[in-house]
Amino acid sequence: MSSDGNLRAASATVEKALREFMQGRTLPLYTMMAYHLGWVDEHGEPVPPAEQERLRGAICLFSAQAAGADKAEQSVIQEYATLSATAIELLHNYSLIHSDIQEGNPDRGVKPALWWVWGPAQGINAGDGMHALARLALFSMRERGISPERVSAALKVLDEATLSLCEGAYMDTVFQEQLAVSTVEYMEMAEALSGSVVAAAIRLGLMASGGGDEKLQDGLATFGLKLGTAMRIAEDYAVLWGEGERDSAAQGRLIAKKKSLPVVHALENADPSIRRELGNMYAQRVIDPANIDRVREVLDESGSREFTEGVLNDLRRDAGQALTKSEMDDDSRARFAGLIEHAVGPLVS
Amino acid sequence: MSSDGNLRAASATVEKALREFMQGRTLPLYTMMAYHLGWVDEHGEPVPPAEQERLRGAICLFSAQAAGADKAEQSVIQEYATLSATAIELLHNYSLIHSDIQEGNPDRGVKPALWWVWGPAQGINAGDGMHALARLALFSMRERGISPERVSAALKVLDEATLSLCEGAYMDTVFQEQLAVSTVEYMEMAEALSGSVVAAAIRLGLMASGGGDEKLQDGLATFGLKLGTAMRIAEDYAVLWGEGERDSAAQGRLIAKKKSLPVVHALENADPSIRRELGNMYAQRVIDPANIDRVREVLDESGSREFTEGVLNDLRRDAGQALTKSEMDDDSRARFAGLIEHAVGPLVS
Repeated sequence: MSSDGNLRAASATVEKALREFMQGRTLPLYTMMAYHLGWVDEHGEPVPPAEQERLRGAICLFSAQAAGADKAEQSVIQEYATLSATAIELLHNYSLIHSDIQEGNPDRGVKPALWWVWGPAQGINAGDGMHALARLALFSMRERGISPERVSAALKVLDEATLSLCEGAYMDTVFQEQLAVSTVEYMEMAEALSGSVVAAAIRLGLMASGGGDEKLQDGLATFGLKLGTAMRIAEDYAVLWGEGERDSAAQGRLIAKKKSLPVVHALENADPSIRRELGNMYAQRVIDPANIDRVREVLDESGSREFTEGVLNDLRRDAGQALTKSEMDDDSRARFAGLIEHAVGPLVS
Repeated sequence: MSSDGNLRAASATVEKALREFMQGRTLPLYTMMAYHLGWVDEHGEPVPPAEQERLRGAICLFSAQAAGADKAEQSVIQEYATLSATAIELLHNYSLIHSDIQEGNPDRGVKPALWWVWGPAQGINAGDGMHALARLALFSMRERGISPERVSAALKVLDEATLSLCEGAYMDTVFQEQLAVSTVEYMEMAEALSGSVVAAAIRLGLMASGGGDEKLQDGLATFGLKLGTAMRIAEDYAVLWGEGERDSAAQGRLIAKKKSLPVVHALENADPSIRRELGNMYAQRVIDPANIDRVREVLDESGSREFTEGVLNDLRRDAGQALTKSEMDDDSRARFAGLIEHAVGPLVS
C-alpha cells in the first residue's frame, strides 16, 4: 500500500470508531461536536460523509501494529488500540476547539470554527465536553473486558498529555505579546504543544500491544517528538511560503502575532534594521494582512526562511533515524516514514 | 461541634490536601491556578493563608464518614476520601474559571477573576489544566495503594459529572438569549449545572467507604440533587434580595441576562403588562444596572419572589427528609443538615 494509502486506511478505521463512540449522543452539546468533526452542518443536518484525515489516531494504530501482536490477544489489542485512537482524536479536537477561541480564528479549515457559529461560551462548553468524552472513550475499554490496570494506565497518559498541551499553550500565548523569544524557547513550546498529543498517541498504541521492547519505545518516542514539532513548524512555514491552500488556523496565528519559528529567528538574529522593521510590525495589535508580503520578504532577507527549512530538514532526518534505530519491521517503518513525508515532506525543497 | 464548625474543619482538611497536591508545581500555569485558589496574588507572591470554604470537598468527606468505616481499612478510606475531595474541588474550580469567562464576570468573590488578570486565552488554559489535574489527583490514589478498579471507578464518576456540567452550562447559555424558558426547564438546568458536582462529591465519598447501603445511597443522592439545585437558586435569590454581600458572579449573571428562577417564573406567569415590561428589559443586550431595582419590584409584584422562596423552602425540606430516610447516624445527619442551613438557610424567611 502507498504511504498515503496507509494513512487513509487507518484514518477510515479511526473515523468509524469515532462515529460509533459518538452514536446515540443526541443532546445539543453533541451537535456542536459533530459539526466540528465534520459530520453535520451548523443546523445539525448530516452532511455527505467525507474522507477525514485522522492523523493522530492513525499514529496510535500504527504504533500498536509496530509493537506486534500476540495472536491470542489480537481482538483485545484491536479494541484497546481503536478506543485509544478515538480518545486521542477527541483530545486533539478538543484542543483545536479551544485554541480557535483562544486565537480568535473564525475559520477551521474550509468552514467557520465552532465558536464562530455558536459563540465563545458554547465553544468552551463543547471543548470541555469533548475533553471529558476523550476519557470516557478509554473507560469504555472496560466494557470490552480490558483490565482496570490497563485502562487506568491509558487514562493517565491522556491526562499528562493534556497538562503538557496546556503548558505549551500557555507559553504560546505569552510569546504572543513578547518580542524577545529565543529559538530554544520556541522549540520547547512546539514540543509541548504539538509533540504531546503525538507522543501520547504512540504510547497508547504501544500499550495496546503490551508495550513493545525498549528500542521500539525509545525510537518511537523520539520519532513522535520530532514529527509533532515538525508538524507545527511546517504549518507555520506553509502559511508563509507554501504553494497549496493555506491552513486557516495557521494564517490566524500569523495575523494574531503568534510566534512562528522564522519570525523568532529573525527577531533574534537578523540585522538591526530588519529587527527594527519586524519589531514595529509586531508591536501593532495585529499584523496588518497588507504587511504579510513584507514579512515574507524580510524573513527571506534575514535568512530565516532558510534557517526554518534547515530545522525542518533536521527534524525530518532525526525522525527517520529514530525509526531506523527502533528496529521495527519494514511495513511498520514504511507506515511511519510515510507520515513524515505526508506532514513535512512537500513543504521543504 | 456546631454545624459551621463541622464545615470549617472539613474545609481545612480539604484545603491542606489541595495544597499538598499542588505543591512542587511551579510552572506559570500553576501560578494562575494558585491565584484562583486564593494562595498567591496576581504577581505570584504568596498571600497570608486565609480560611477557605471548600464546601463540595467537605460534602465528599462527610459522605465517607456517613458510610462508616471498617477500622482495618481506615487509612485507605482517608486517602481515598481526601484525594476525592481534592479532585472535586479542582473540578468545581475549573468550572468556575471557565464560567467566569463564559459569563464575562470580571470578579470572582472579592478579587478580579483569573481571566480578567491573564486574559481569556490563558483563562481557558488554566481551566483546562485544572480539569486534567482533577483527574491526576485521583490517579495519585494508586501511589497510596488503592486498587486500579477503585481508581478507575472514581475517575468515571468525575468524567460523567463533567459532561453533565457541560450540558447544564449549554442550557444556561441557550436560555440567556431565549425569552420563553419554563420553570421546569430551569430546574433541569440547575440540577445538571449545580447538582452534578455535589452528586459526584457524595458518590465519591460513599465509594471511599465501600459504597454504603442502599438507603444511604438513595437518601444522599436525593439530598445532593436538592442541595445543589438550592445552592444555585439561593445565589440568584441573594443577588436580588439578600442582605449580606452579593456574590459577584451571580450579580454578573443577572446583568448578562442569565435566567434565574424568579425571572423565569415571571416571564411565564405574570400579568401581560409585567411580562411585557420585563421582556423589554431582557431584550436589551445586557440589563442596565440602573434597571435592577425595577426588576426587583416587578418580581415582587408578580409573586415571583414568593414563588422562589417557596421552591427554596421545598428544596430545603426535601433535602432534610432525604437525610431522615437515609437512616444515617446522628452526627452525620447533623453535618449534612448544617450544610442546608449554611447554603440556603439564611436567605429564606
